[in-house]
Amino acid sequence: MKIEDYVLSIPDFPEPGIVFRDVTSILQDADGLHLAVDLMQEKLEGIDFDLVVGPESRGFIFGVPIAYNMHKPFIPVRKEGKLPRETVSVEYELEYGTGVLEIHKDAIKPGQRVVIIDDLMATGGTNQAIINLVESLGATVVKTVFLMELKGLKGRDKLVGYDVESIIAYEGK
Amino acid sequence: MKIEDYVLSIPDFPEPGIVFRDVTSILQDADGLHLAVDLMQEKLEGIDFDLVVGPESRGFIFGVPIAYNMHKPFIPVRKEGKLPRETVSVEYELEYGTGVLEIHKDAIKPGQRVVIIDDLMATGGTNQAIINLVESLGATVVKTVFLMELKGLKGRDKLVGYDVESIIAYEGK
Repeated sequence: MKIEDYVLSIPDFPEPGIVFRDVTSILQDADGLHLAVDLMQEKLEGIDFDLVVGPESRGFIFGVPIAYNMHKPFIPVRKEGKLPRETVSVEYELEYGTGVLEIHKDAIKPGQRVVIIDDLMATGGTNQAIINLVESLGATVVKTVFLMELKGLKGRDKLVGYDVESIIAYEGK
Repeated sequence: MKIEDYVLSIPDFPEPGIVFRDVTSILQDADGLHLAVDLMQEKLEGIDFDLVVGPESRGFIFGVPIAYNMHKPFIPVRKEGKLPRETVSVEYELEYGTGVLEIHKDAIKPGQRVVIIDDLMATGGTNQAIINLVESLGATVVKTVFLMELKGLKGRDKLVGYDVESIIAYEGK
């Protein structure tokens, strides 16, 4: 089976007109989980990097096994108030209003090379916010790997100049 | 280094009088992340099971690499409204009020043997709620492995008759 075959598409979730691409249907199959992690990890072969960053909560799903397999630290990006030590934070746009993402200040050192792992590129807003956090700590984002990409939302327009790859690209939104 | 040495203890977080045991300080070190996953996974050696269940969001951190390494499906338990397909749900007690946890109805089949992975046993309320979800689908929880346990909160009192293990046990709350 190809990785695409593990993804269930749910019409009208979370609201009418949206087709939700369901990552849990991949995880629900041991072969699907393996394939997703392995395909994302292959995109990092030959890349020189120091650590993996992934956002709460679906970025944890793929970011941690990749960090484990490649023997790198995993640095979580979380919503406001959830990280216990000193953080830097960034505001980012949500569909309605704004949210705040945080990362531990001591988790990334100036000059380090960072890979971002997440499940889905939609508008690119979350990824842009994470890049801001990483760069505010003096580090460099050398690559982002998404499992899925909704090309119709033009997330790449926000990420010009950055190395961004996805495993499955859907034409729509 | 022992696994305990990777855990930072943060006084007065998230409120005065609480000592927060920080799992992110383990992940922030590639050796710490490896050791945590490996020690938890060792507790599953010789256990016959079909799938790994882990709750949002810190249960994802350890549950997914263990599922990947042992070639099992990973089934997420999430907060209300986040899973796109048909779910079963359970109410559980939070410090103030109640919350709702959900799992996909088609993710676990009657008779399956389930392992639950989470980062921390505090009051045991979340684990009890997950056991209820799994059993409502006709499956059996054969073991829960926590990375950390706060013995002073007596979570095991809620989990009598279940096989529960933790890697690091703190005496206090």
